Amino acid sequence: VTQVQSSGRAALRRSLRTADVGRLVDDACTGEARAVSRLLSLVEDGTPDLPKIMALLTARPGHAHVVGLTGSPGVGKSTSASNLVAACRSRGLRVGVLAVDPSSPLSGGALLGDRIRMQEHTDDDGVFMRSMASRGHLGGVSRATPQALRVLSAAGFDVVLLETVGVGQSEVAVAGLADTTLVLLAPGLGDGIQAAKAGLLEVADVFVVNKADRPGADQVVRELRNMLAMDPARRERVWRTPIVKTNAVDHEGYGELLEAIDRHSGHLRATGEGERRRIRRAEAELDAIVTSAVDRRLARLRAGEDFSRHASAVATGNCDAYSAAERLLDSLLR
Amino acid sequence: VTQVQSSGRAALRRSLRTADVGRLVDDACTGEARAVSRLLSLVEDGTPDLPKIMALLTARPGHAHVVGLTGSPGVGKSTSASNLVAACRSRGLRVGVLAVDPSSPLSGGALLGDRIRMQEHTDDDGVFMRSMASRGHLGGVSRATPQALRVLSAAGFDVVLLETVGVGQSEVAVAGLADTTLVLLAPGLGDGIQAAKAGLLEVADVFVVNKADRPGADQVVRELRNMLAMDPARRERVWRTPIVKTNAVDHEGYGELLEAIDRHSGHLRATGEGERRRIRRAEAELDAIVTSAVDRRLARLRAGEDFSRHASAVATGNCDAYSAAERLLDSLLR
Repeated sequence: VTQVQSSGRAALRRSLRTADVGRLVDDACTGEARAVSRLLSLVEDGTPDLPKIMALLTARPGHAHVVGLTGSPGVGKSTSASNLVAACRSRGLRVGVLAVDPSSPLSGGALLGDRIRMQEHTDDDGVFMRSMASRGHLGGVSRATPQALRVLSAAGFDVVLLETVGVGQSEVAVAGLADTTLVLLAPGLGDGIQAAKAGLLEVADVFVVNKADRPGADQVVRELRNMLAMDPARRERVWRTPIVKTNAVDHEGYGELLEAIDRHSGHLRATGEGERRRIRRAEAELDAIVTSAVDRRLARLRAGEDFSRHASAVATGNCDAYSAAERLLDSLLR
Repeated sequence: VTQVQSSGRAALRRSLRTADVGRLVDDACTGEARAVSRLLSLVEDGTPDLPKIMALLTARPGHAHVVGLTGSPGVGKSTSASNLVAACRSRGLRVGVLAVDPSSPLSGGALLGDRIRMQEHTDDDGVFMRSMASRGHLGGVSRATPQALRVLSAAGFDVVLLETVGVGQSEVAVAGLADTTLVLLAPGLGDGIQAAKAGLLEVADVFVVNKADRPGADQVVRELRNMLAMDPARRERVWRTPIVKTNAVDHEGYGELLEAIDRHSGHLRATGEGERRRIRRAEAELDAIVTSAVDRRLARLRAGEDFSRHASAVATGNCDAYSAAERLLDSLLR
């Protein structure tokens, strides 16, 4: 596993020469870990080279199956992710892991432990791990995430695990980017089913009940079954959301989980749902690029002379705020 | 005091006839409470009539002195506000109160108690009270706040109290809109001076130490004095931030507090700082209008056919995301 710190990357903000960009993309597409890391840093920092890079990557889309992994703190998400990586590796699959650290103080650092637990894959160059700060965008998933997924797919990973703490809207954001979304629950957390009721049904492609050896695990499974049976949209659904029991500490249930993911992957291909999800991911990617560009323009506008001049006119009553705003909008949109 | 609920206002979203807008503004400018309420609802809901309304209000700027009131929960902000209102009334000043309810679950509802305590002014038509949800904009102050202040000033109020719970960035946002910012502290809260160190010095025009009869009040005053004395920017400051002790429960100290506000008001006039603050408020108003307009355009873009078409092209690899985003930006900015 390769880990790269997010600090000290100021030097990367310089624009690269076109030849260097080409070589970097070539290297990353062979799966060379340092090149992949560098591309991800460029994506995260929003380098001016991104349009060039993304144009080159578009020609090499790769074939990664993106597996979203979400669940409340305490469900054993990090050990589950590590087990899932091991299960993929035993099948010879190359795995990229993208862990999104929500920057909220409520959940901050919850993924730090994950990184440590992933250390068991340290010597395996078929595993690549990276964490990104979410900065509160897109409901707990960083704006750069769709492009980071594109990098990892181009780098030839068969599976990309997109992991986030299930806080706020992050499950929904992860599901919007994933091909298959796993929702982890565990007995004894109390909020498991409550959270599930609040919208996880819409989001989960596979429910994973971890800590299956604990008392209460069967109760969680029963409640999930009842909830799925009562889903008013059930009749229209072709995919019957499976419930897989795992025990991350004892490495149990991951063969079955991989099979469930495989079945879902087949369902995506057979029904055209896979294409719909790729379009949804492209929408998120476009949205992130457009919104960032607009934000940059707004920031420039606020810092400009025009803005101060119009504000003075409004303050002195020489101009009403809407007329001034309209003129500023015109200059923004020019 | 006049209170209007924020619910059931859907009917107000219809566009008004121009004649009605004119009459409404006329009525509000005589201080007629129902008309003021209605204008504030239109401002908060973002009615399509806003440009018309704001153009009419610009001709009648009023003369309100905006007093920002901020402090952590527990400092006695609501009783202090009520006392300040009473002190203004005893001088014959008409007072508008704008309480911004942060929508954060951390502080939600903290201002509800204020409304109840303000009931003592219920029968006084020289007092107008309104609360607005912040919806997380502008660091705890609603986007509609600058325009709401404009309405209250046009309505002829001499003083407008802008009140918010001191959570996150709300102090800074309030100070950005106020002529005079009061920062409330109280003994026994522990975080008082800590919070002060974290940036309140920049924001406070007057420090108010409430619960002055409690043990520790003098200690808070001493610490504030030390902090002010150590301020590296002290020499350049013309205004020496006063520290006023109050006891809201026993209605003590409010004459002195009003005098401090008066002195600050004189300082604003004498130094040109008042004009700078009016410009700052106009900037916040412009920023809110421009940002809202851009957000509406973005929402329309996301919902449009162009967006889906480009996303499909990106998903199938027929177009790279940046080229597609650039075309979408062009159509957004057209």
